[in-house]
Amino acid sequence: MRRRSEDSLLRNLRRTLARRGVDRLGDDAAILSGGPTSWAVTVDQQIEGVHFTAGTPPKVWARRLVAVCLSDVAAMGGRPTHAFLALQATPTLDVAAVLEAVADECARSDVELAGGDLASDSRCGGSLTVMARPVAGGRWLRRSAARPGDTLWLGGPVGWSRLGRELSGSAAIERLPAAQRRDGRRARRIHREPTPQLALGQALARRRRCAAIDVSDGLALDLARLCRESGVGAVVEREALPCPPEALARALGLDRLDCALHGGEDYVLLFTLAPGVRSSPEAGPVRIGTITDGGGLVLATGGHTRALPARGWDHLSSGTSGG
Amino acid sequence: MRRRSEDSLLRNLRRTLARRGVDRLGDDAAILSGGPTSWAVTVDQQIEGVHFTAGTPPKVWARRLVAVCLSDVAAMGGRPTHAFLALQATPTLDVAAVLEAVADECARSDVELAGGDLASDSRCGGSLTVMARPVAGGRWLRRSAARPGDTLWLGGPVGWSRLGRELSGSAAIERLPAAQRRDGRRARRIHREPTPQLALGQALARRRRCAAIDVSDGLALDLARLCRESGVGAVVEREALPCPPEALARALGLDRLDCALHGGEDYVLLFTLAPGVRSSPEAGPVRIGTITDGGGLVLATGGHTRALPARGWDHLSSGTSGG
Repeated sequence: MRRRSEDSLLRNLRRTLARRGVDRLGDDAAILSGGPTSWAVTVDQQIEGVHFTAGTPPKVWARRLVAVCLSDVAAMGGRPTHAFLALQATPTLDVAAVLEAVADECARSDVELAGGDLASDSRCGGSLTVMARPVAGGRWLRRSAARPGDTLWLGGPVGWSRLGRELSGSAAIERLPAAQRRDGRRARRIHREPTPQLALGQALARRRRCAAIDVSDGLALDLARLCRESGVGAVVEREALPCPPEALARALGLDRLDCALHGGEDYVLLFTLAPGVRSSPEAGPVRIGTITDGGGLVLATGGHTRALPARGWDHLSSGTSGG
Repeated sequence: MRRRSEDSLLRNLRRTLARRGVDRLGDDAAILSGGPTSWAVTVDQQIEGVHFTAGTPPKVWARRLVAVCLSDVAAMGGRPTHAFLALQATPTLDVAAVLEAVADECARSDVELAGGDLASDSRCGGSLTVMARPVAGGRWLRRSAARPGDTLWLGGPVGWSRLGRELSGSAAIERLPAAQRRDGRRARRIHREPTPQLALGQALARRRRCAAIDVSDGLALDLARLCRESGVGAVVEREALPCPPEALARALGLDRLDCALHGGEDYVLLFTLAPGVRSSPEAGPVRIGTITDGGGLVLATGGHTRALPARGWDHLSSGTSGG
């Protein structure tokens, strides 16, 4: 059976909508209308066997469902207000625990869980729709706003989540060499409990010009999406990348650079700033490269450069894929 | 394993939200704020093995997903504007066909499919979030607006969908006695292609006072919900009920009154009108009873009355259940 990538399906959806005069799928959320009553709306899913393993506690995947949606809102620079849950429950699922976790995680970001639907199913999962308003004095962040000469930034470390995915089993940490267990626990926490960068996104939304996307499917693949929407290329500096520790990656049989570039599920913001801007609006982000006038994606290591393939984590084929 | 009803889960969700000061689950959609920027938002799901059988063509269940959501909007008296799809796809699903069908069905009601998310899964299904605006000169319809003395109306026939559910197999119509095949095809079409009563809902929204709900889980169960929200009872006149044909029900081993009262998935509006109002705002609806001052639900047949159990179709337990 031919594997289909999420990007190919999104292209399909986009073509379907384009034939109807709708072209809103370039960003992390759809923007409903301009002006003071403008809303951004985003939908995400967490499905057992796809986004989390069968033994994952309901609270963990329920919170993750909220976090990945809010990360989309962060990439739009919005202020999330309302959430709507479509829950799929097996007969043994602790539905109350899921609802509490979703409502808790929403409340942490001042979001109201305002409605939902429940259905029995053969596996657990949920989809969440989140509505957001523009932040006061800001505009919606778009993927299409990058220009040659802009600097390229990452809101936080990448690659840890990929390592944490390997450590989701209960005894996985104990199987690590003792010296790697502390980092292992950190990686698992980062994978399980992504923190949407809402404050950073809102600060960026007040900037004069800024392109942004959240790194959900891997730095390289999401950078390729941002560059495609902006019609630009990018150079990523290998030395500037906030990679996970080499020893932990090696203990898990993985390459730390590969995890950082293609691992996915990092849920940090990847954004650009205009050439004159020297620093990020908040502490934490690191500058990792420069936007170029075409030429695709390039990885620069010292004096050498190589093409950076737009490969990342694909939820549809449950593995890595070309974008 | 204990079977849980959808109502018990909704009560659970409601308690969870009530502890947070949110109480919006009494109606078919959540209302976000009053005034000219008010929105109603509703979420519904169609899942293989729960709402449709494995062999159902993608176009059929995709259109049904839109229709059941729009029926919620109809029950609010709203004008639907935007839809967001979370699609779950098996490797063999014709995703383009689903997207086309969803976009087509949305366009028929002037709704824009504005965004979505796609994930691989072990079964097909989708959840749809629909946003709606109030209709010009109207207000949101609520379940809680019924008063004793109001007349009770049904927007269309009930029970046909329950018969159609039995006829979803490809050869099911041919197995019927020849005289029942025409009605059988009609029942299957009503089950497969519910028609949301948007125009009726919008006309009702312009009335001075009107309570409404859509019959999704069975007339008796949804009437019980409306009465609970309004703090009233109701008498339903057996002779006035638009039941399906007795011969077709008998050929399928079902009771036509039971199908009409408890079959579910009818997606017609059940509404009340103030005592002085003599007719429905649109042709088609039939008066089926009267709202009473408490006393629960009563079915009146000639001079006799009996209690009407709040039993209906339950998507969670895939069968009938008490409400």
